[in-house]
Formats: sequence, C-alpha cells, structure tokens
Amino acid sequence: MDRILATYRITASESESRVRAEALAAEQSVEMPVTAISDAHVLTDILASVEAIRPHAGEFDVVLGIAPATTGNEAGQLMNMLFGNCSLQPEVELVDVEFPHGYADTFAGPRFGIEGIRALVGAGSRPLCCTALKPQGLAPDRLASLAHTFALAGIDIIKDDHGIADQAYAPFAARVPAVQRAIEQANRTTGGTAIYAPTFSGGPRALASQVKVAREHGVKIALVSPMLIGLPAFVDLQEELALPVLAHPALAGAVRVAPAVLLGKLFRLFGADATIFPNHGGRFSYGKATCMAITEAARAPWHNLRASLPVPAGGMTVERVPEMIAGYGNDTMLLIGGGLLSARERLLERAREFVAAVHGHGHGA
Amino acid sequence: MDRILATYRITASESESRVRAEALAAEQSVEMPVTAISDAHVLTDILASVEAIRPHAGEFDVVLGIAPATTGNEAGQLMNMLFGNCSLQPEVELVDVEFPHGYADTFAGPRFGIEGIRALVGAGSRPLCCTALKPQGLAPDRLASLAHTFALAGIDIIKDDHGIADQAYAPFAARVPAVQRAIEQANRTTGGTAIYAPTFSGGPRALASQVKVAREHGVKIALVSPMLIGLPAFVDLQEELALPVLAHPALAGAVRVAPAVLLGKLFRLFGADATIFPNHGGRFSYGKATCMAITEAARAPWHNLRASLPVPAGGMTVERVPEMIAGYGNDTMLLIGGGLLSARERLLERAREFVAAVHGHGHGA
Repeated sequence: MDRILATYRITASESESRVRAEALAAEQSVEMPVTAISDAHVLTDILASVEAIRPHAGEFDVVLGIAPATTGNEAGQLMNMLFGNCSLQPEVELVDVEFPHGYADTFAGPRFGIEGIRALVGAGSRPLCCTALKPQGLAPDRLASLAHTFALAGIDIIKDDHGIADQAYAPFAARVPAVQRAIEQANRTTGGTAIYAPTFSGGPRALASQVKVAREHGVKIALVSPMLIGLPAFVDLQEELALPVLAHPALAGAVRVAPAVLLGKLFRLFGADATIFPNHGGRFSYGKATCMAITEAARAPWHNLRASLPVPAGGMTVERVPEMIAGYGNDTMLLIGGGLLSARERLLERAREFVAAVHGHGHGA
Repeated sequence: MDRILATYRITASESESRVRAEALAAEQSVEMPVTAISDAHVLTDILASVEAIRPHAGEFDVVLGIAPATTGNEAGQLMNMLFGNCSLQPEVELVDVEFPHGYADTFAGPRFGIEGIRALVGAGSRPLCCTALKPQGLAPDRLASLAHTFALAGIDIIKDDHGIADQAYAPFAARVPAVQRAIEQANRTTGGTAIYAPTFSGGPRALASQVKVAREHGVKIALVSPMLIGLPAFVDLQEELALPVLAHPALAGAVRVAPAVLLGKLFRLFGADATIFPNHGGRFSYGKATCMAITEAARAPWHNLRASLPVPAGGMTVERVPEMIAGYGNDTMLLIGGGLLSARERLLERAREFVAAVHGHGHGA
C-alpha cells in the first residue's frame, strides 16, 4: 500500500527546509536519529519519507509519506502518526492529509451519512434545520418543554447544547426520556418527525450506560464531541450505538490542524454523519474559505466513504438563512440556537420562521 | 462550593476587554445571549462570572469563575467548560486554573504518585531513570532484546516509544509477554527491579483487552497518551488498571492551554502518576521557565492530590544528566531514548553511564 501523504506548513526560514523536513519525518515515525537505525525494514517501510518541499508565502510546506502500517488502522494512532509529537512544535501545522487507495476502507466512515439523516427526518432533498436546547442548568422538564416547542415548529433535529452533559441538574438518564416524550407528543400533534440528539459524554463506562438509556427510550441520533471523549472512543461508540452521530467541534479548534482536515476529512473518516462547525460571520473567527473547505471535505466524493452533513453554526440568525443556503447548498443543516431563544415568548413563531425559511430557500424549492 | 477560577489570555485590544470577558463568560457556560435568559438559577448558579480583568503585556487576562456543577465532576466535561468552545477562538489561551476547596477531591488524582513509583523500582530518594524501546517497526523479539540490555544496565523504567501502539509488526499481545520475560530475566541476573511500561492505546474495547494481557503478564506500570485516547478514557482506564500511569504529551502540545496547566495540573488531577514533557534545549521549543512551571504544577502540594513525577525528555543526552538533576532535583525521572540508542554496539555501556550519572548526581548522593 502506498503512503499516507500529510502536508505540514512550517513557520521557519526556507533555507532550513530540507533539514526541518527530514527532522519532521523522523519525529513523526521512528523518533530517533536515523543514523542510529541499522534495520533495513525500518528504514524502508517505517521511516516517513519526505515526498515534497514547497515554498508557501515565506514559509514552506513539507509533504511526508507516512507508512499506513504505523497507524495500526486505528483512529488514535493515526492521529499520533499525523500530529502526535509535532503538536509540541508550535511552528508546525497539519494542513492536509490524503490517504492511499484502500486505506480509508479500514475505517467504517459515516454509517448513515447525509442520505441516512435525510431519511430519518423525511427531508427529501431540501436543506435541514437544527436547534439546541439551552442553556444548561435547566431541569429536564424545562428542556423538554423547549424541545416540545421546537418540535411543534417542525425543526428536524433538536440537539442538546454541547455543554449539556451528565450534570446533576439534568442527568442523561432523566433528561433523555423527558425530552423524547415531549418530542414524540409534538410529533403526534404535527404528524412530523422531529428527533432529539442528546449529548453522549464521559468515559467508556458512562458512554455504555448512556447507550443503554438511549436504546430504551428510542433515541435516533446522537451528539458527540470527538475531541472531548477521544477519537478512539468516538469510533467505538458508533459500533455500540448504531445510530447517526453529529460531531461537535469542542476542543477541536485548538489543535493546529486545518479545520477542513480535522472537522472535515478526519471526523468523516472516523464516522461523523454530520459535522458542526462555526459559520463565518458569527461568534467565531472562521472565514468563509475555511467554512467552504470544511464543507467540501465533508461532502465531496472521497474514497468509499459516505458524505458527512455540514452543519454551520455559532451565532446564526433566521435572517441569514437565505444567504447560508445559497452558499452551502441543500446538502446542509443550518443550526440556530441562541438566535431562536432570543425571541423569548415568541419562540414558537421564530422557530416556525426558521423552518419556513429553510424549507423555502432550498434550491428547486 | 466556590467557583473554578480559569484564567484566559486574550489577544485583543484592552479597550474591548470588558465586552470580550463577558462574551467569554457566556460562551463557556450558557452559550446564548444572557439577555435571553430569564431563569434566576441559571443566571446565579450556572453562568460563568467575570472575576477579574487584568492587563498583560498589551493583551489582557480574564479570570472566569466557572460553576463546579457545570463540569459534572467529569474530566471531559471539565475540559469542555474550561476550553471547549473557546478552543475555536484562536485569540484565547487558557493560562491557569485553580479549583475551589473540595473540588479536586471529586477526582482520584494520582493513585501512586512519586512515592508509589519510587517504591516499585526501589529507588529510595535518588532521581529515577527511564528509556524508550524504539524505533517502532521492530518485531517483539528485537524490542525484547533491547529491553533486556536496558534492564541489565539498571534503568528503572523501560517504556515503549510512544509511537509503538498495537501495530501488526509488534502487537500488544505478543510484545508485552516478550518484553516482560526479557526484563525479568535481566532482573534475575542483576538482582534489579527494572519495569516495563507498555503503551495502552485505542478505544475502550482495545484498552480492555490490553488491560487483560497486561494483568496476565504482570505488567507493573503503563504508558498512556491522554489526549490520544481521550481524557475521560484515561480516567476510566486507571480504575481498570490499578497500576501507575506515565502520561505522554502526544497531541497535547497543540491545545493552546499552557503546558503547566495541561501537562501539570490537569493531567495530575486526572491521575497521571508521572508526566512526560519536552525538556528545554532538546528537539522541542519549550523554554526553561515552561519546564519549571510544569514541574512545579506536577509536584507542589495541591489540594489532597499526590504528586506527579516530572519526566523531562526529548533529545536528551547522558552529558546533560548533571545539569538536569541540578535543575529538577531528585524527584524527577530523566528519560533518554535516542541518545542511548545512538551508541549502537556500545548501547549497554552507554545505558550504564546513564544509570551511573543519575545515581551519582542526586542531591545527597
């Protein structure tokens, strides 16, 4: 099998580029002076290769060829090979990764993907809409009441705010049945198919107990922060859950890996059926090009992996729906949380306006 | 219980500091416009408070008071509250955290700590020494042969290179018994107590199977990269293992959290009995002050937590041993990997020189 091609941008003078590239190749594979290695197999098959060095705006890019065997075809170890030690070198950023033919097949990728999520909420080919139960601190009945309103309005997916985990004031085991019931009740009223995405969080034992609760109460989709629970746990969780997963970028922004690589390619490889990211023009500083690159990485044909649904979010408003759909297209889920809750006593109307805007502005709508 | 005090350094003009501080307080707690919250309990008990704003070298520091209840006393959710969403704001860095009285008791912290590791290897009060089996790509018998040599030399802890995970060329289940046997054999020859720290990696299922293998073969200490397997999985693993854990900083360097906070305070809170970090003057760019701050955070009296053993590493040489011990003191473990292997056919002698230097330069030695 050919090499995994990982591109690093290095902030250092170009005159050092060859030395830096070779040092990085050793750091990210054998982690020792290459001159001290006598084993031919290690030098040929394990040591990362320097595939290219390219100037880039006063810095330079290095393309390393990482041996797939060194990743053990496991998410955490792939991350380790791509960015384990060089995470400790602040001048190094991982800006792209490409896998050789066949490698991506060693991961399951999204089990449901965009089509699977569309089928769950009966969305046909229109854009999807999503909102969040917030703020944390509310008791299950209050969250359930919010969820009921959102479901009445016809929002497709009602997710926990990502800060809602398993706190004493709304434990998973009490919150999930309450919110599920409220949404089912609203669905019976409207004939709709709104679904609830609770946050799965904590260590393996907590996750296993949450899976059990979710199964007992008919949960149909999950919200997970892969960088908080750990990428390998994220992969394992999907085997147990057998439900679509929305990946949240908590903690992921700091990881000096280009957002399109981490939130797009890698989260998709590791199974995210949808990937939430900060939309441009909101509370976060991602620019439009970054958002488009994430979307492309999530959705474009790539190996045999299903497409992940891009979910731009973060300080969005109903007024921006037409522009966002024009920019992202129909295979997108718009997430507005606080922007709806700001309507307070007009929450149901604002949520209905959101749904109408999303349904009305899809291409071909 | 009082608030968790988290200090953020924000790269922005000081004139914006009040607005930015309040926005950060909302972002890291309720994640919605505060004006849209009517619930008094949420405003009083859940919303993070702005405890202080302090100018710092043209930037400013903001101290937030985070409600302990929002963390659910769980590692991943604590990380989420401290740095989940603001990880997506590149101008924000987490530079300190302090916990209120009693909060740290909700975590186990190091179960063995410096004293427990000393007892395992019969080290008395001298500094400890550690090396790494490398490069990855060697088969179990080759790694075992290296381990045998290191154990003969009297090195205290022989760890896997952090890139050695569960790859096909040296799977955990084959590698661990081979290396354990080789070290036991050497110990019988020397009367010594060298121990092997294999890498635990992967998802919950892989970890559970590795724990089983480790138990069957009498493994006494573990190497784990908490940011690769996930902090909550790191915490759970320790419950299962009931062995001391050396925490490796792979992937941790990128997380825009001050190294003393992440590798020192947080890894210690989450149970690291020893914390490996890049020593100044090696292959990584940590300065001396950073290394001393990590060491202080790992070792100083702090709540009721046992001390973590600082393990400076990364491109070290035997020649630097006296300087390192002078700088770090006896409650330190020096880790030299490639610097020993570079000796090639003189490996045993170089390893013995390392051991002699460590034993000879401790204070009071």
